[in-house]
Amino acid sequence: MNIVEFTPERSQYVYTFGGAEPVMRVNPGTALALWSEDAYNHALRSVDDLASAKLDVRYLNPQTGPFYIVGAEAGDTLAVHIVSLTPARSWGASATIPFFGGLTSTDRTAMLQPALPEATWIYEVDTDAGTVGFQSRFGDFEVALPLAPMLGTVGVAPAGSEVRSSLVPERFGGNMDTPEMKAGTTAYLGVNVEGALLSIGDGHYRQGEGEACGTAVEGAMNSVIIVELIKGGGPLWPRLENDDYWMVVGSSRPMEDSWRIAQLEMTRWMAEMFDLHEMDAYQLLSQITETPIANVVDTNYSVVVKVPKKYFTRVQAFDGMHRELRGRARRV
Amino acid sequence: MNIVEFTPERSQYVYTFGGAEPVMRVNPGTALALWSEDAYNHALRSVDDLASAKLDVRYLNPQTGPFYIVGAEAGDTLAVHIVSLTPARSWGASATIPFFGGLTSTDRTAMLQPALPEATWIYEVDTDAGTVGFQSRFGDFEVALPLAPMLGTVGVAPAGSEVRSSLVPERFGGNMDTPEMKAGTTAYLGVNVEGALLSIGDGHYRQGEGEACGTAVEGAMNSVIIVELIKGGGPLWPRLENDDYWMVVGSSRPMEDSWRIAQLEMTRWMAEMFDLHEMDAYQLLSQITETPIANVVDTNYSVVVKVPKKYFTRVQAFDGMHRELRGRARRV
Amino acid sequence: MNIVEFTPERSQYVYTFGGAEPVMRVNPGTALALWSEDAYNHALRSVDDLASAKLDVRYLNPQTGPFYIVGAEAGDTLAVHIVSLTPARSWGASATIPFFGGLTSTDRTAMLQPALPEATWIYEVDTDAGTVGFQSRFGDFEVALPLAPMLGTVGVAPAGSEVRSSLVPERFGGNMDTPEMKAGTTAYLGVNVEGALLSIGDGHYRQGEGEACGTAVEGAMNSVIIVELIKGGGPLWPRLENDDYWMVVGSSRPMEDSWRIAQLEMTRWMAEMFDLHEMDAYQLLSQITETPIANVVDTNYSVVVKVPKKYFTRVQAFDGMHRELRGRARRV
Amino acid sequence: MNIVEFTPERSQYVYTFGGAEPVMRVNPGTALALWSEDAYNHALRSVDDLASAKLDVRYLNPQTGPFYIVGAEAGDTLAVHIVSLTPARSWGASATIPFFGGLTSTDRTAMLQPALPEATWIYEVDTDAGTVGFQSRFGDFEVALPLAPMLGTVGVAPAGSEVRSSLVPERFGGNMDTPEMKAGTTAYLGVNVEGALLSIGDGHYRQGEGEACGTAVEGAMNSVIIVELIKGGGPLWPRLENDDYWMVVGSSRPMEDSWRIAQLEMTRWMAEMFDLHEMDAYQLLSQITETPIANVVDTNYSVVVKVPKKYFTRVQAFDGMHRELRGRARRV
Repeated sequence: MNIVEFTPERSQYVYTFGGAEPVMRVNPGTALALWSEDAYNHALRSVDDLASAKLDVRYLNPQTGPFYIVGAEAGDTLAVHIVSLTPARSWGASATIPFFGGLTSTDRTAMLQPALPEATWIYEVDTDAGTVGFQSRFGDFEVALPLAPMLGTVGVAPAGSEVRSSLVPERFGGNMDTPEMKAGTTAYLGVNVEGALLSIGDGHYRQGEGEACGTAVEGAMNSVIIVELIKGGGPLWPRLENDDYWMVVGSSRPMEDSWRIAQLEMTRWMAEMFDLHEMDAYQLLSQITETPIANVVDTNYSVVVKVPKKYFTRVQAFDGMHRELRGRARRV
Repeated sequence: MNIVEFTPERSQYVYTFGGAEPVMRVNPGTALALWSEDAYNHALRSVDDLASAKLDVRYLNPQTGPFYIVGAEAGDTLAVHIVSLTPARSWGASATIPFFGGLTSTDRTAMLQPALPEATWIYEVDTDAGTVGFQSRFGDFEVALPLAPMLGTVGVAPAGSEVRSSLVPERFGGNMDTPEMKAGTTAYLGVNVEGALLSIGDGHYRQGEGEACGTAVEGAMNSVIIVELIKGGGPLWPRLENDDYWMVVGSSRPMEDSWRIAQLEMTRWMAEMFDLHEMDAYQLLSQITETPIANVVDTNYSVVVKVPKKYFTRVQAFDGMHRELRGRARRV
Repeated sequence: MNIVEFTPERSQYVYTFGGAEPVMRVNPGTALALWSEDAYNHALRSVDDLASAKLDVRYLNPQTGPFYIVGAEAGDTLAVHIVSLTPARSWGASATIPFFGGLTSTDRTAMLQPALPEATWIYEVDTDAGTVGFQSRFGDFEVALPLAPMLGTVGVAPAGSEVRSSLVPERFGGNMDTPEMKAGTTAYLGVNVEGALLSIGDGHYRQGEGEACGTAVEGAMNSVIIVELIKGGGPLWPRLENDDYWMVVGSSRPMEDSWRIAQLEMTRWMAEMFDLHEMDAYQLLSQITETPIANVVDTNYSVVVKVPKKYFTRVQAFDGMHRELRGRARRV
Repeated sequence: MNIVEFTPERSQYVYTFGGAEPVMRVNPGTALALWSEDAYNHALRSVDDLASAKLDVRYLNPQTGPFYIVGAEAGDTLAVHIVSLTPARSWGASATIPFFGGLTSTDRTAMLQPALPEATWIYEVDTDAGTVGFQSRFGDFEVALPLAPMLGTVGVAPAGSEVRSSLVPERFGGNMDTPEMKAGTTAYLGVNVEGALLSIGDGHYRQGEGEACGTAVEGAMNSVIIVELIKGGGPLWPRLENDDYWMVVGSSRPMEDSWRIAQLEMTRWMAEMFDLHEMDAYQLLSQITETPIANVVDTNYSVVVKVPKKYFTRVQAFDGMHRELRGRARRV
C-alpha cells in the first residue's frame, strides 16, 4: 500500500479547523504517515517550564494538515482509520494552566477565586515496558502507567464558513479528547466543504476519561492513518468504530446536552442499521450503552456513547468499511 | 455467618430516605437476605400495561428498609457489601413514561412538545443462559442480553432532617442507578443520623450507562448484603469499591457538576490514601480515571469516577474493609 | 379586619418545609402579623462575626410557621398577599461564606481552589431616609441604597412526603430569593398537604437580582400578610401577582431549566386566561416577557418570568383575587 | 456631523463575524446611517411563509458591514453609540422554526420528540400609535404592543482567527439579542483584529427578554450609529451603557455561566471604576444588580448584568464617552 509521509515545518502548523489552505491533495484510500507536534507546541520541556510563562495562546494545539481529500463534497462521509500511533519523543508533558481545567474556575465558569498553583509534570516513556512514568511534583510518589497513545484532535473544516480554534470539539470533530481515538479505530466524519480538509494532532501518550486537569500526557506523535471516502451519508456528529464498539461523540454544554446529542444520534444510527422503530432503539440502547465522558475541560464537553457489537453479529456499519480498513491496515 | 432474612409486606414498603421508622435493628457485621419489589411497584406486568394508566406516582421505587444499624452515629461510615443479587421473578419490565427519561422533555427541561409514545417492554429471564430477552414493541427484532443484576438504589437517611423521595440520588446515596452497584461491590456511605437507616431497592436485571429511557430492566430482586460500620470517616459522597476499582458517585445538575463532585472527592481520597499533594493527585487522576455516566434521567444526574487499583498495590482503602468483606461474603 | 400576631420563640423556629408541626390553625381570610429572625439566626451582628466561626449549619434560615390553613387540601391554591414588610432591626447583615455564593466554587460546582476571603458587612438602616448604608470592609467607600424589603422565603409543605431544607427553592416555593416578593405582591402556591403548612422568613432589607454573593441585606422582619384559600386550581409552580405583573418563578438547575419551567408555566397560564392556543401564547410571550434572575446561589437557581398586565385590561387572574386582597390590605 | 450612509446590496450581506472583507473604511467619530435586512433574509413575508419551506440556513441573520475602523488595533475599545433605530418596513415577522427556540428540543438539547407546529406571525407596524400588532394564528386574539426597536446583533471580528456564524453571541458581541441594544445605548466591544471589523444587523421591532420562541418581531431596520475608538482598555466581554445603567453581557452555556461571566466582569469593572476591593465590589453588586436574561435560544445563552448609575454620581465610565456620544447624537 502506498504511504505518503508528511512532517510539517513549524510554519505549516495550523491552529484552526477551516480557514487554512490544504498542505496536500490526497486520494481516497491513501495511507498517511504523519508527525504532529504536541499541544503545547513544544513549549513545556521540563518541570521548570510553567504554562503561564511558556505557552503562547496563539499557538496552542498545532494541527498537521489540512489534507484535501480528492472527491470529497459536502454531505459525504470521511472515514479515517488509525493504523498506529507511536510516541515521537521519549517523554510527554502535562501541566496545570491558570483558569483552565475541570476542577478550577475558568473564563466561562467564572469566579473570583485565584488560580490553582501552576505545575508541569514530565512523564518519561519506557518503550520496552510500554509505560509512561508519573512522578510527584510536590512529593516523592511515582508510578508507571501503561502507554495508551491516542489523538486528542481529528477533524474537518466546519460548515457555514466557520473557522474554529483547534481547541474546540464540535460536529466537525476537532478536539474531542477521547481515549477511544486510538489505533484500530475508524472515525467517520461528515464532510462540510469540498475536499473535507482533514487535520489531526494533539497526541496523548495516555489520558484518563474526563481529562480532569485539562491536559493529558501530551507528546509529539507519529500517526499512520488510512483515509477513505464514502459518498453521501455524512453523519451529523462524529461516529467511531473499532472491532468491539460502535460509538458517537457528542460535544456541547452543559454536559447532559453532549450526552443527549450522542445518545440520540446513536438511537437513530441503530434504528437505521437494524430497521428498528426509534422507540425500540431508544429502549434497547437504554439497556446496553456504555457512556464514558471524554473531556470536561474544553470549550465544549464531550461524551461518548458506545454500543457493544457483540450482541449484533449480522450487521455491518457503513457497508463494512471498518472491517475493510482493518484488513488494509494489516498490510501497511 | 448469621443471615437475617426480610421480605417486606406491601404496607411496609417505604418511598423516602429519611422519614420512615426502621423495620429492624441490625448489628454491624450482619448479613441480610432481602427481597425488594420493582420500581414500578409491580404495576407493569405485560406489554399492555402502560405507565400513565398503571403507575401511581405516590408508590414508585419502593424500598426495603430502613434498617437501624446499631451503633451508627452521624459522621460514621456505613459499609454495605453486596454479596449476591438474584432476580426474584422470571421477567423484568422497562417502559417509556410520559415526560420522564433522557431523550424527552421533562417537568424540569420543560418544553411545549407532546410526550413521546408510551410503551412497555417485557424482558424474559433465561436463567440457564444467563440472559434477558429484548423484543421489539414496534417490529420483530429480538436479542438476548446478558443478565447483569444491580441495585439502582442504596441509601441512608439524609442530613439536616430532610426527607427525600426514593427517586433522588444525592450525598446519602439513593437512586444513583449505576451498574457498578452489583455483586462484589462495597458501598461506603456517610452516616447522617443515629442508626443510619439504610434502605435498598430498585433492582435492575441489567441497565445501560445513562439509563437513557429512564428505566432499566426493572425487576423484583433477592439481595444478600453484609452491613458493616466504621466509626468516623464518613465520606462526603458515596464511595464504591470492588476488586478492581475505587469509585466515587457524584449526583447533581448540570451533569458537569456531578462529575466535578466525584472527581474532586476522588482527588481528595487519593491524596489521603497515598499522602499526595492535592495537585499531584489531580494530575495523576487526570491520566487514569474512568468516568462512566450512571444516569441522566433522575432528579439529579449521576457520574461515577473510577480509579483502577492495579496501579497501586500497596494501599488499602478503609483499612482493607472491602477485602475483608469479600472474604466474609464467600462464607455466607 | 382581624389580625393575628405571632412572634416565635427561638425553640419554635423551623428549618424545613414539611416535617414540622403547625404552630397555629388559621382561617382563610386572616391577616397575620409575623416576626421572623434573619437567615443567619442572628449570629452575625458585627463585622467581626465571620460566617465560619458563627454560623451553625443546622440553624440557618429559620422560618416562622408553619400555619395550618383551615380547609386547605392537596390541589388547592393558597393565596398569600404581602400587606407590608418592615425591618425589625436597625441594621442588616450580609456576608461571604466559604464555598457558598455565585462567584465561588461550591459543594456542587466543586473545585480545588481555596475559599474566597470571608467578610461580614453591616448595613445601618436609616428609616427616615428610607435607606440602608453600604460600607466597604476593605476600603473607605460608602453609599446609601434604598430600603426595599422583601421575603426570601415563602413556602408550603412539599408533595410526596418530602421534607426540604428551608434553603431550597422548589415547586412548593421556599427560598426563591426574588425581590418580587415584596409588599403589594400576592403569591399563589399549590397546596400539597392538608392545611398547606405555610411558613415565611428570610427577610431581606434589599437584594440585587441574582443575590450574587449568596446573601442579601439580611434582617429580622415584621411581615403583615393576608392568607386566602382558593379551592382547586393549585398551580404547578409558584405564581406571583402585583398591580403591574403576572409572574411565575421556576427553580431548578441548570438555570436554563429554571427559565424553561417558568416560561412554560406562564405560557399555559396565559393560554388559559385568554383562551389562546399554546403556540399563540408562546409567540406572544416571546415579545413581552421580562425575565429577571432571582438567585444563582441556592440549591436550585430561580428565574422569574413576568408579563405586564397593562396590555391586557379585560382579564383577571384567579377571579380577581389579587385586586380583592389589595383592597382588603388597605383596610388592615 | 458627517453621516455616511450605507445600504448593502444583497450580494454584500455577510453571515459571519470575521472572515469577510470590509465594505468600507470608517474614521472614528463617524456617524453611520445603515440599512439592514431582517434575520430571515426577507423570506417570511406572510403568515403562509413557513420557516422550513422558506428559510435558507446558509443565509440567516445577514449583517451590514463589516466596517474597518481606522486606527483600531487588537486590545482597543470600540464604542458604538446607537443614535436611532427606525423600522424600515411597515411590518415585522416572527416564526416558530422546527427544533429552534426555548421551549422545544433542539440540535443540542436533543430529544426524540417531534417538532412543534410551525407558524409565522406578521406584526403590522402602526407608526402613529407607535405599536406593532399581535394577531393570533390559531384564534382571533389581538393586542397592540409598543414599538421598541433594538438590534439583535452588534459585533466585531473574533480573536484567534476564528470566524463565527452571525447567529452566535460571544465575547466579540454578535447575536446577543438583548432589548438593551436600543437607541441611547453605547456598546463597548474589545477589538481583536486590525480595523475591528464591525457589523450590525438583526433588527427587532420589539422582543421579550429570553426571546422565548427563538425569534423577535424581526424586521429590516434603519440604524444611525456613531462609532468611536478608545485606544487600549478593550473589555473582555461586551459592555453597554445608557443614561441609567452600566451593563455587561455574558454569553455561554449553561446559563449560570453566562451570568457568572457578566457578574464577574461587572465586579471587576466596578472595582476598577470606584477603586474598590473585589470583595467589596462583589458584596455591593449583590445588593444592587438587575439581571435580565437576554436570550435562551441562541448557540450561547446571554444574560445582562445591570448596575443603576443613580447611586454613583461622581464617576464616569470610559472617561465619559457615553455622555459625550449622547451629546453628539443630539446633533446628528
